[in-house]
This record gives sequence, C-alpha cells and structure tokens, in this order.
Amino acid sequence: MSFFTSRWVPKPDHVELLDGGLPRGFRAAGLACGIKADGVKDLGMVLSDVPETVSAARFTRSGVLAAPVLVSRDRTELHALRAVVANSGNANAATGSQGLDDAVATQAAAAAAVGVEPAQVAVGSTGVIGVPLPLDRLLGGLEALRGELRADGEEDFAEAIRTTDKHAKRASLLVRLPSGDVRLSAQCKGAGMIQPNFATMLCFVQTDAELEAETADLLLGVTVKRSFDRISVDGQLSTNDTVVLMANGASGVKVEPMSEDELKLGEALDALLRQLALLIAADGEGAKRIGRVVVTGGDMRQVEAVARSVANSPLVKAALHGGDPNWGRIAQAVGGALLDAAPLPFDVAIEGVQVLSAGEGLRFDQEALNAAVTGDEVEYVVALPGDGAETEVFFSDLSHEYVTINAEYTT
Amino acid sequence: MSFFTSRWVPKPDHVELLDGGLPRGFRAAGLACGIKADGVKDLGMVLSDVPETVSAARFTRSGVLAAPVLVSRDRTELHALRAVVANSGNANAATGSQGLDDAVATQAAAAAAVGVEPAQVAVGSTGVIGVPLPLDRLLGGLEALRGELRADGEEDFAEAIRTTDKHAKRASLLVRLPSGDVRLSAQCKGAGMIQPNFATMLCFVQTDAELEAETADLLLGVTVKRSFDRISVDGQLSTNDTVVLMANGASGVKVEPMSEDELKLGEALDALLRQLALLIAADGEGAKRIGRVVVTGGDMRQVEAVARSVANSPLVKAALHGGDPNWGRIAQAVGGALLDAAPLPFDVAIEGVQVLSAGEGLRFDQEALNAAVTGDEVEYVVALPGDGAETEVFFSDLSHEYVTINAEYTT
Repeated sequence: MSFFTSRWVPKPDHVELLDGGLPRGFRAAGLACGIKADGVKDLGMVLSDVPETVSAARFTRSGVLAAPVLVSRDRTELHALRAVVANSGNANAATGSQGLDDAVATQAAAAAAVGVEPAQVAVGSTGVIGVPLPLDRLLGGLEALRGELRADGEEDFAEAIRTTDKHAKRASLLVRLPSGDVRLSAQCKGAGMIQPNFATMLCFVQTDAELEAETADLLLGVTVKRSFDRISVDGQLSTNDTVVLMANGASGVKVEPMSEDELKLGEALDALLRQLALLIAADGEGAKRIGRVVVTGGDMRQVEAVARSVANSPLVKAALHGGDPNWGRIAQAVGGALLDAAPLPFDVAIEGVQVLSAGEGLRFDQEALNAAVTGDEVEYVVALPGDGAETEVFFSDLSHEYVTINAEYTT
Repeated sequence: MSFFTSRWVPKPDHVELLDGGLPRGFRAAGLACGIKADGVKDLGMVLSDVPETVSAARFTRSGVLAAPVLVSRDRTELHALRAVVANSGNANAATGSQGLDDAVATQAAAAAAVGVEPAQVAVGSTGVIGVPLPLDRLLGGLEALRGELRADGEEDFAEAIRTTDKHAKRASLLVRLPSGDVRLSAQCKGAGMIQPNFATMLCFVQTDAELEAETADLLLGVTVKRSFDRISVDGQLSTNDTVVLMANGASGVKVEPMSEDELKLGEALDALLRQLALLIAADGEGAKRIGRVVVTGGDMRQVEAVARSVANSPLVKAALHGGDPNWGRIAQAVGGALLDAAPLPFDVAIEGVQVLSAGEGLRFDQEALNAAVTGDEVEYVVALPGDGAETEVFFSDLSHEYVTINAEYTT
C-alpha cells in the first residue's frame, strides 16, 4: 500500500506521512472472535479517551439499510461519539428485528466494556448479507477487546474490518497547522460493491485537533463528497456504508471555524480520504489498474451521468483491464448516458492523447497510446459541449478475478 | 438455437415454426465482402419485390448515433422501405462526416443494385466503433449481392450480420390468421452492449401480410417495448441499434386495424421478438445462463429502476453465473435503486422459493434452492410494497468469457 504516489492525489506540503499510530487520546484494537473461520481478525474497536470528543458521520443512502446503519444513525449521539465498534464477515443486513436487536446488543456491550454510554458508540458491519450475527462470539470478543486497546492498535483494527480487501487500508498523518501540529489517522475497508454515496466501505477517522461538532460535520461532508463519493468498483451501492470522524482535542490545538487552521486541516483530510478512496478503487475485487474519468462541459446532471456511465461500463472496464485503448467504448458509454442528445459534438482524450474531436475519431499514434494505457493509472477526459460543469470518477477495471470472487461468494 | 422452448415465451397456438424461408415476395442474401478477415460473411440485404411494401422502424436513443442510424432515420421513407442492407465488422460510428458520406453511398449503391430509390433502403452497421468503413469492398460486395438474392437467403443474411454472436439468430413462422395464413420471419444479431431501448442489435422482420403503415408501426412499437427493450446483457446502450419491419402484402391476406387478424398477428410478432430477445440475452457474451427478474408493486418508475438495477448488477450477474442463490445481492441491488427509501419491506423469491419477506431473510431449503439456480433459466421475483406496477427484464450472467471478449476486442 503506497500513499501519495498517485499523480491524482498529491501530498499537501504541510502533511507528513507517519509509519503508524493513532492521534493522542485514541486507542484501538482488533482480534478474531470467530465470525470468520481460521482465526482471522474480524472484530475491532476505536475509542477516544476524551469525554468531550466530537464526531460526525455519513451513511449509505441505499433503500435497504443494514441494522448497524440504522442503529448508528438513529440510536446514537452522532456528534458526540466516543467509540466505534465494527466487525467483518457478516453485514447484519436483511436480518430483520433480530438483526436490529443484535446491533443494539453489540452497541450496549461495547459501551459497557469501555465505560461509555451506548449512544456514544457507533456500530459497523461488513460481510455477507442475510445471515444472523453470531452474537455470542461477538460479545465474547468485545470483552476481550477491552484489554487490547492500544495507541498503536489501529493496524489490528484495520485488519479486523477487511473483507475481500487485498490489504488493510490505513494511514497516520502529522498535520502542521498554523496554530500547532495535530495528528490525523484513518482506517478503512472496501474492495467491491463500491459506488456513489461511497461504497461497501467503512471508514473511521480520528484527529486530536479540537473541533466544534459543526466543523467536524462540515469537513467530513465536503471531503466524503470528493473521495468515497467519487469512486466505483462495480456501480453497486452497499447496505452498510459508514464513515465516522472523531475529534478529541487532545492536541490542545483548537481549529476555529473559517480559520486558516480549518482550511489546512480540511486539505489534509481531503488528501487522506481521496487517497484511501483511490486505494479502494485500486483494490477493487480483482483490479489490475485504475481509471479516472474527468467530464467537463454540459451541466452538473450531464457530467455526473456521463462520468458514472463511463466508470460503470463493463465494456470500458474490461478494455481498461485488457490495456486496450478502445475509445469506442467511451463514446458508447457517453451516448448511453445522454439519451436523445444526438448530435453530440464531444471530445475524448486518453492519457493526454486526443482520440475523438466533435464526435469524430481522429488519427493518432496508436502504438504510443497502446503503451500509455498499460500503466497502473489511465486517465480519460470527456469534454461535452459547453463549459458549465466538471466532475471526476475513479474506477476499477473488470477482471476475471472479479467474476471468480463474486460467482462464488457465499457458497 | 431452440425456439419456443423457454417457459417465458410460449408459442401461440396459431403459430407454426418453419425450418426457414422468407415470406412471399421477399429475397435475401449474405456474403463476405472483406470487411472482416478470413472470408467470413459480413454484408447482407433483404429486398421486398412488392412496390407497395410498407414498413416501420425503431432506433437506439443513444446520444451518440452511428452514421447508418442517422441515414436510415433521416434520409429514408421509413414507412415505405423496400430493402435493408447491413454489414458487420464495422459500426460506422463516431466516423464523422466521412461516415455519413459512406452510409449514404452504401444506401445509394444498394438502391441502384436492386432498382429502388435510395430513400427506400435502410442501412445498418455493427462492429467496431470509430474506424472508417472500407467502402470500396462494401460497394463491390453490393454488386455481387444482387445476383445472390433468394427466397431462402435469410440464413446467409442472418450469418452476415453476426458479430460476437455464437450463432445466427433467425426464425420463419407460419401464422394462421382468421382471414388466412401469412408468413413472418426475422433475422437479428446481438450478444453484447445490450440494454434498454433494445441493444447493440439489429433486427429485420418481414411479413407477407398486407398492413397499413400505421398498423406496422403500432405493432412494431408495442412488441419492441416488450422484447428488445426488456433485455440486458451488460447495461450498455449501443450507437447502432436498429429494428425494421417490412410488410409487403404478397399473401393477399389483409390485416385490418382493430381486427382479430391484427390481434393474432400481433401475438405472433410478440412471441417472435420476445424469443429473439431471449436468444440475445442467452447468447450474451460468455453467458452460461439467463435470468428473468420480475418486479411488482410500487410505481412504474420504481419497478423499472429496480428491475434494471438487478439485471445490470455485476454482483447479481456473477452470482447467477456461479449458480449461487445469493439473495443478498438482489437485496443490495434493490436498495441501490431506491435511494433513501428505507425502511423498505420487500419480498424476494428465487425460482419460487421465498427467501426474503418484508426485508428480512427467511429460512428455506438451501439445497433445493442451490439446485434450482443451476438450470439454464433462473427467475427472481421482487415484490415492492403496494400493487401499482409490474415489469420484467431478462439478463445474462457475467462470465470470465465476457471479460476475455471485451478486454481484447480491438487489439
């Protein structure tokens, strides 16, 4: 896992990448409680030791919400969370009233284990849908977790929330604000069922900056829109997506609204979440390389529709996988997104090579383009007529391994 | 290729499946003109010998329209076509003004070859996007085609319009109308880039019934909506989709508007196009089995969104491919289609086995269900709350072969 090596997410100058560790006043742990087979870690917790911790959260917009999302959204003080508890191996989704009871019991047991109120604990689950949570094992695991919480436990935590992720996804940053240094860390998971409004993804973010709850909510809202909301592995929206930011002020550095501190912290959070989002797309189930489609012109509805259409096109994704600069697939995806819009004089460039101008294919150096699309990252720019809007989506390719993984997921 | 063997498309009692042959007064041919390599057939024509032939057509709604679609739509007498000419191996799409000139030249040469007006000839192309049509070869082929036209030439024609289709798709029917017997035949192609408003598909239909042009248009419109508009291989809308119906009256059987004859002919056309649509889905690139999702309840917008979401979900499609009754994928696709609709008490049944009730997973005979989803056809029924609407979509699974085919399409 490499951070800030993509041309698409440069590291801000005031940010330093650390080897690991949580911001002051946070502890985390992860362990195997037996939800997954073979002693693989499947349960984790992050706790802030500071009573005044503020928080913010975002959830999936799916019409089918998993029990932990309902509990976290409706039965917590979302702006004053002290802890998050998350499991992998079971999504606790489509599990009805039993599932809700299980999520509530998990929340209560986690709260009791670390001495906070249940409403201060958010719960997250990821894994198979429609299977009851093995609550006994989970509760036993929570009991054991309490003794494992450590200031450098985020690696175990990140490990415990993985599903088909090839590797754990986490980062610890030192952020030099005008008013002083703060720490920022995040752990996330996601490799499939990834699409707008983020993904089958869980992401937990911590900072020891002192924020007002409104500032935390503002910063998280803006940065999620620019990160997890702009990636797609397979165009699939999950029932379980959850992002939680906790800020505990343990650094003593206060970030005032509308200050330069807020701006710089926002830039750091933005880079962190965009990088994690990129890692999710790059780790898309079976993915070999990652694409970025930038769409300009038209209006917001049009650029969004075109960007999603290109990013989710199995034809575009298969061509990306094959290292095939098949711009006809791009043109087809553009047309499919804008019904009855013909004639549509749009331009397409792939890795800076103009291949289509005003809807008409151009002559270009085929060999150079062939070579350009075999790298780890391929950029497509679609310019619609007009100059009203712009957006981007990062996306995975479509591989044999994706089919293998998802043809045999439960059985 | 088997016709009328699916439970989803029963053969009407008044319809008889013939071995082949065109309705009276039609001739067709197909040959290799050199667009494709290796002497594979790539150019074909269907001609009605009756000057009074009426016709109707439907085209893709893509915002990116191929030249042959623009020419057929804008430069013909769509209700009085005498001939269709179609090539495979090159879509003549995103080819700009040269592409338009080439399509017009093709139309003119075909018209001259068989002695009709250019405006009486529709053109269709399918294949790679963005490559200029090899017009010389095509014009040479048209010259040769004239001598090849035969009453049983529809097999060669169907062969000539194939791209990645595993087999040619065509049928010849005898239809017993109250006023007398008529013949009905169709040739079509399509195996990928198949989604609403039909598909990367070309379909040419002929009958020797005598119809008013308005009747032909009405019948084609209704039956296309129930067939090619209800299938999806990969959710991709093509730049080239074209369906043309020609009726030449050579049987002497007149089908009056609002008559029992019209109803019966409509039923036959409906069965024919639904069967061909099903063959396209079953022949989806790499497809092993075919799914049908039926969505009831809610309103038309909701059932359409849910049916498309399920049919186009790569997770659902991969599970279908793997013979995996993973209903969690269905639940996730339903939720992804209906943002912010939670709680959503919907039911799901797979092959008649109820697996989800009011959003909650049920206990069921897992072994029986596992066995049920390994057949050639798998049916999913999603019941949304309410009883306002109903729709269906037929879809292919997602296979390794799809990835292979589309990762290496042009190169």
